[in-house]
Amino acid sequence: MTTTQTVQALVLHGAKDLRLTLAGQETRQSPALRPDEVQIAVKATGICGSDLHYYSHGRNGNFVIQAPLVLGHEASGVVTAVPELANSATSGAFSFPPLKVGDRVAMEVGLPCRACNLCSIGRYNLCPKLTFRSSAKTFPHADGTLQSLISQPASMCHHLPDNVTFEQGALVEPLAVSLHALNRSQNAGSGVGVPLVGSTALVLGAGAVGMLTAAALSVAGVSEIVIADIDAPRLKIAAGLGGGRFKLKTFLLPRKSPAPTVEETLAGAQELAAEVGKSAGLESGFDRVFECTGVPSCVQLGIFATTAGGKLVLVGMGTPTQTLPLGAAALREVDIIGVFRYANCYPAAIALFAGGQLDGVAEDLVTHRVALADGEKAFRLALNQAKEGEDEGRVPVKVVITS
Amino acid sequence: MTTTQTVQALVLHGAKDLRLTLAGQETRQSPALRPDEVQIAVKATGICGSDLHYYSHGRNGNFVIQAPLVLGHEASGVVTAVPELANSATSGAFSFPPLKVGDRVAMEVGLPCRACNLCSIGRYNLCPKLTFRSSAKTFPHADGTLQSLISQPASMCHHLPDNVTFEQGALVEPLAVSLHALNRSQNAGSGVGVPLVGSTALVLGAGAVGMLTAAALSVAGVSEIVIADIDAPRLKIAAGLGGGRFKLKTFLLPRKSPAPTVEETLAGAQELAAEVGKSAGLESGFDRVFECTGVPSCVQLGIFATTAGGKLVLVGMGTPTQTLPLGAAALREVDIIGVFRYANCYPAAIALFAGGQLDGVAEDLVTHRVALADGEKAFRLALNQAKEGEDEGRVPVKVVITS
Amino acid sequence: MTTTQTVQALVLHGAKDLRLTLAGQETRQSPALRPDEVQIAVKATGICGSDLHYYSHGRNGNFVIQAPLVLGHEASGVVTAVPELANSATSGAFSFPPLKVGDRVAMEVGLPCRACNLCSIGRYNLCPKLTFRSSAKTFPHADGTLQSLISQPASMCHHLPDNVTFEQGALVEPLAVSLHALNRSQNAGSGVGVPLVGSTALVLGAGAVGMLTAAALSVAGVSEIVIADIDAPRLKIAAGLGGGRFKLKTFLLPRKSPAPTVEETLAGAQELAAEVGKSAGLESGFDRVFECTGVPSCVQLGIFATTAGGKLVLVGMGTPTQTLPLGAAALREVDIIGVFRYANCYPAAIALFAGGQLDGVAEDLVTHRVALADGEKAFRLALNQAKEGEDEGRVPVKVVITS
Amino acid sequence: MTTTQTVQALVLHGAKDLRLTLAGQETRQSPALRPDEVQIAVKATGICGSDLHYYSHGRNGNFVIQAPLVLGHEASGVVTAVPELANSATSGAFSFPPLKVGDRVAMEVGLPCRACNLCSIGRYNLCPKLTFRSSAKTFPHADGTLQSLISQPASMCHHLPDNVTFEQGALVEPLAVSLHALNRSQNAGSGVGVPLVGSTALVLGAGAVGMLTAAALSVAGVSEIVIADIDAPRLKIAAGLGGGRFKLKTFLLPRKSPAPTVEETLAGAQELAAEVGKSAGLESGFDRVFECTGVPSCVQLGIFATTAGGKLVLVGMGTPTQTLPLGAAALREVDIIGVFRYANCYPAAIALFAGGQLDGVAEDLVTHRVALADGEKAFRLALNQAKEGEDEGRVPVKVVITS
Repeated sequence: MTTTQTVQALVLHGAKDLRLTLAGQETRQSPALRPDEVQIAVKATGICGSDLHYYSHGRNGNFVIQAPLVLGHEASGVVTAVPELANSATSGAFSFPPLKVGDRVAMEVGLPCRACNLCSIGRYNLCPKLTFRSSAKTFPHADGTLQSLISQPASMCHHLPDNVTFEQGALVEPLAVSLHALNRSQNAGSGVGVPLVGSTALVLGAGAVGMLTAAALSVAGVSEIVIADIDAPRLKIAAGLGGGRFKLKTFLLPRKSPAPTVEETLAGAQELAAEVGKSAGLESGFDRVFECTGVPSCVQLGIFATTAGGKLVLVGMGTPTQTLPLGAAALREVDIIGVFRYANCYPAAIALFAGGQLDGVAEDLVTHRVALADGEKAFRLALNQAKEGEDEGRVPVKVVITS
Repeated sequence: MTTTQTVQALVLHGAKDLRLTLAGQETRQSPALRPDEVQIAVKATGICGSDLHYYSHGRNGNFVIQAPLVLGHEASGVVTAVPELANSATSGAFSFPPLKVGDRVAMEVGLPCRACNLCSIGRYNLCPKLTFRSSAKTFPHADGTLQSLISQPASMCHHLPDNVTFEQGALVEPLAVSLHALNRSQNAGSGVGVPLVGSTALVLGAGAVGMLTAAALSVAGVSEIVIADIDAPRLKIAAGLGGGRFKLKTFLLPRKSPAPTVEETLAGAQELAAEVGKSAGLESGFDRVFECTGVPSCVQLGIFATTAGGKLVLVGMGTPTQTLPLGAAALREVDIIGVFRYANCYPAAIALFAGGQLDGVAEDLVTHRVALADGEKAFRLALNQAKEGEDEGRVPVKVVITS
Repeated sequence: MTTTQTVQALVLHGAKDLRLTLAGQETRQSPALRPDEVQIAVKATGICGSDLHYYSHGRNGNFVIQAPLVLGHEASGVVTAVPELANSATSGAFSFPPLKVGDRVAMEVGLPCRACNLCSIGRYNLCPKLTFRSSAKTFPHADGTLQSLISQPASMCHHLPDNVTFEQGALVEPLAVSLHALNRSQNAGSGVGVPLVGSTALVLGAGAVGMLTAAALSVAGVSEIVIADIDAPRLKIAAGLGGGRFKLKTFLLPRKSPAPTVEETLAGAQELAAEVGKSAGLESGFDRVFECTGVPSCVQLGIFATTAGGKLVLVGMGTPTQTLPLGAAALREVDIIGVFRYANCYPAAIALFAGGQLDGVAEDLVTHRVALADGEKAFRLALNQAKEGEDEGRVPVKVVITS
Repeated sequence: MTTTQTVQALVLHGAKDLRLTLAGQETRQSPALRPDEVQIAVKATGICGSDLHYYSHGRNGNFVIQAPLVLGHEASGVVTAVPELANSATSGAFSFPPLKVGDRVAMEVGLPCRACNLCSIGRYNLCPKLTFRSSAKTFPHADGTLQSLISQPASMCHHLPDNVTFEQGALVEPLAVSLHALNRSQNAGSGVGVPLVGSTALVLGAGAVGMLTAAALSVAGVSEIVIADIDAPRLKIAAGLGGGRFKLKTFLLPRKSPAPTVEETLAGAQELAAEVGKSAGLESGFDRVFECTGVPSCVQLGIFATTAGGKLVLVGMGTPTQTLPLGAAALREVDIIGVFRYANCYPAAIALFAGGQLDGVAEDLVTHRVALADGEKAFRLALNQAKEGEDEGRVPVKVVITS
């Protein structure tokens, strides 16, 4: 067992109050493994927008940290311990794919109950009892992966083949969000949905998830993909992603001051949607629109930019209350599809990295790497608040903390 | 051919300006049948909300009548003429199920192009070239069914078995809306949707479409159905529909004055949703919510009343721009599904009437019958503006014009 | 805890060798409850075809009993003990809907691993590690429910509302098979499947599962249902099921001697299919055919009786190797859909009994009741090998053992 | 109009009796265009297996030519005439995307009725009134595309962008078969299907359709694709398809003499399935198997090679009656999905060629080109019966006739 091992962790005690536990100071010990758990040495964790919210404000929307919390949930690592009896589980008890010390894994850090109706039908991301590492939604909080060692249910560890790097392993989590969005966009609505292969799509937002979504759409055979953002440098990265293999077209959205009335705002959104469509020769709009910003003006744009019978997928977590041109959606049977994290997407995400379909993507998206001991720097970089020279002259997209 | 027959029609010349064409006055002649058409003697037409809008305002939302228009689109009738060559169509030309004089039919009055991509995949209700009888959306307008004779594409006539009455035939159209809503609610979203059989549903709005939707849900095996409205007499009709065979539970919604802020409005909607759920023992909400009012407060209520992973189906055509608790939908993967009329639903609707599954429904919903010659009275009744004694003491639900 | 309680069990030691454990003789003790288990006093168990195979031959197909085995898996009961810590499970461990002593439940006796990919996506019936009570497929065998007390994972116990009887609770298992078959028949194939409501179906085989499937189809809104069998008395029961409320049409299949050649056999099947269709006015066949016999001639008939674009669902477990008119299926896109038990169907099955949609069905199907102590008689009855007077003059459909 | 134009056609008068109509000899005149038709100068037609059957035997399975028949249905061309009134169609009549003289198109040569239920729901490939060019199923036969000029419904012409060649245009038809197979494999069965992206597939048969299917699977994001055949040279072409961009793995199937018993045959198929799976590290089988040979031993292999919950898609039209290990399919919920040609797949197929996702494929598959005037040589080549030197030393895959 592993009860006496010292764990180095980056612990958030409040807004901007990030403390590294050091041996001899605030030692955190790894608890004994349960029979369904293995111990993982974390190797890489990507910093996500929600991590940045907790770091900056001590909260993420309605979820306020009530006790020191370890952030981080986009993570890969190596198995360092397996409980003796873990693989001998008998009938009726849990079982899981055998893991052994030295196995490299991506961790799925949302832990569902596996017994409620939503778990049972495969939508475990919606489990009402789910705890998610690094989130303050449940209490006691489940600590995240910004630590050197972690105990993790074996059934939530996914093997990484030898040719998948730890950094790619850390990107499996946001890629799983993208794949879940693709999956949800395929079945929604009645009757025939347009298959992905040979179809058209618009991605709103060129952050890490937007770019991974666009790349995943290309891998899935979508023929015409436009990615739009207000930030030209990010669009440049998107266009060159993976050496340009995804053939993403880009559209620079105007930075607009808000119109004086809702009517004018919506009229503007409708005009802009027409322009975006026209830029790709798609006058009647896109088969699917993936909204990855959460900004109301983009959701409005998304409704108008979706073709009749198409799907608007809400990937970005945004303003909770929004004013929408609902009639323009409903009367054209444009379905508004929510996406909450992912379910059953890690295996496919890993397969894409292993199969080479995403070669070059990790290199383009992971712009900065920071050691766990120097972890706060990672947050400064991701927030565009780096000290002079820290950013190495690169626009930060995904910052990864290594250990 | 039928070129010299005189047709009696109820023609809308402007708001509240409804004129009956009489032989010798403003005679309308039936045009020659195209080879794909048959001639129908209209027997029953139900008055719909959109008919009432045109009658009251000379417009329906953005669609303004630009020329005299015959209203009516919920219709059944009898075949009175078939073109000689209609059934001899050869390869490559259209063909259709053979019809003969005397056949009783329900008419599907949206006429799609049958050649565009949306028609081709079976979503012909979304055809951009669709003309819909009694609508002013396209020009020249396509006249509706409030006339004694009509030329109708044979492929859009659906046989009525002998045991289905003309009034039931007129209800096939709004029932098709309900069935389309059920269909769309089944496939939406990724992964396993909850099957209808044994599931739960809430219907918001106890008008004709709301009641037909609730009845259809019962026929489809939904175990727990609540129908809610602000109008107690309508709920009483719903509860007794078909002699109570559908076991609909009712919930009387409070008539509220609007809250001063959006936050309070939404908080109120969330509380009300909890109450509605609790009234049926469904603390986590309904698997499906069918919104049949179009009122923003009901759409808000509907989002909160839907369980995680469920579907909110927008059946009612309502306020085009609405402020919604979008986060409460997206983060729980409650999909917002639009419904625009129907496609491929007439055969099933007729089968339900023929199979007896909806026995008693037409009798309960068709509260008033008016002859075509006295047509304006039908509009007064449906608008609750009947003259003394005209309403025969019944709350109007569906008013049918006969000929 | 419950470790010292004596359990009465009906134990199969080999073909026709069924022994009742009696206190003082071959006492079976209830093992200690695991923290995820509750103890159930079994109240009713239906005898199934697989039970009869084990009883008659000591095997069921390839699965031979290797140690004494308790049969029975269609079961309901009452919770008699709950482990102290069961409901205090914390994050990351299993959890389940709270149960308390005295709760009435239907038991789902297939125990999946809940960790493999198939469990994770909601298809736990296909879990490669699944153990199923009363089956000799896995070893050590998992004992069935023909005993007075049983330890059962809490997550596999489904609450029975007060108005659902234990006998109905025992029928939940075969009804779940039927509902799973309905579910699988809805999504199969590309593009638009025909919705169940208003559609047509043929059920081949009027055993318990066939009759439950036909009843479930009716509850699901299927308008035209034919049930076919070679046994007239069973068809009579089917026609009168639930007082005739399901409006099932019956078709008596001829008992044929096999044709000399495959070609003639298939020609005969095609002719018979046409006859069955014609009997219901469905010249082009049924939207769905549910094959509940497993007999090759019925599978052949089923292919021909399914309309183009329809589904043939294999519900009956039958001859492992069969000669089929595969071209007649593939060229008409008639999909051949397998059904292996059920997943996620207990809640809906219970809801149907609770909602009254299946009133009368249990009374019609449960033809005989036998006490556990007299258990062997139940097998004689179910096998039509009852001693004089034992069958009370009724054709056995479902025999239930009570305790 | 075009009534006096002379058309050169390759007309099959009986087995091996192919005659070229020459001006002055057996002149065929182009009939007047119907208002829904355009005239096309055919540029390229691929020779298909069914063409070869008609050529060799004067029949294809049960369909015997009853009058001289023009073969060919994989075709592209240029619009040479449009009827004057074609684009002025008014409400209720057909309409279609506007075409003008000079437009380059791929032709969809199955002509459905567009009015029956199957057409209406988007499954027009199953239309009972469908006529298919070059097929003797209907009479009078609809002539195929092996002629210089053809009248074709405008709604069945699909624009080819400038960067798609006529040869690619001729491959759109078999690619549409592949895409239809992919589509059908995605929705079949209940609950969650495994999404294509990141999944695994086996393709049985390395003919043109098998290779296009494998390439399409790669384009759709399938991570692990094995293509198997008994012919090593074809596998070599498959491995190198598009310069190796599809990363297809190959498996050489053994040429076996039939086993003496069905049991041994099936045992052999099961062993071979295990070997094929093992070769790709997929011990539990493939998510999807596409059977493109029609050979019974391959269908048997396909059932065993499909993982539990997976799909076996029957793409190849094969032996009408087959003996199958049906239990091995049904008990693992391996669905057997038929594919009959395609519906709604041309636009996506064209988009893939236009988007460059299939660059190099046409070059690799079209091994021989023959002028219409020399058409019989094309049949010799495709049948491997070329005269000395005619085959230019290449293994024929797809032979194209140009005009």
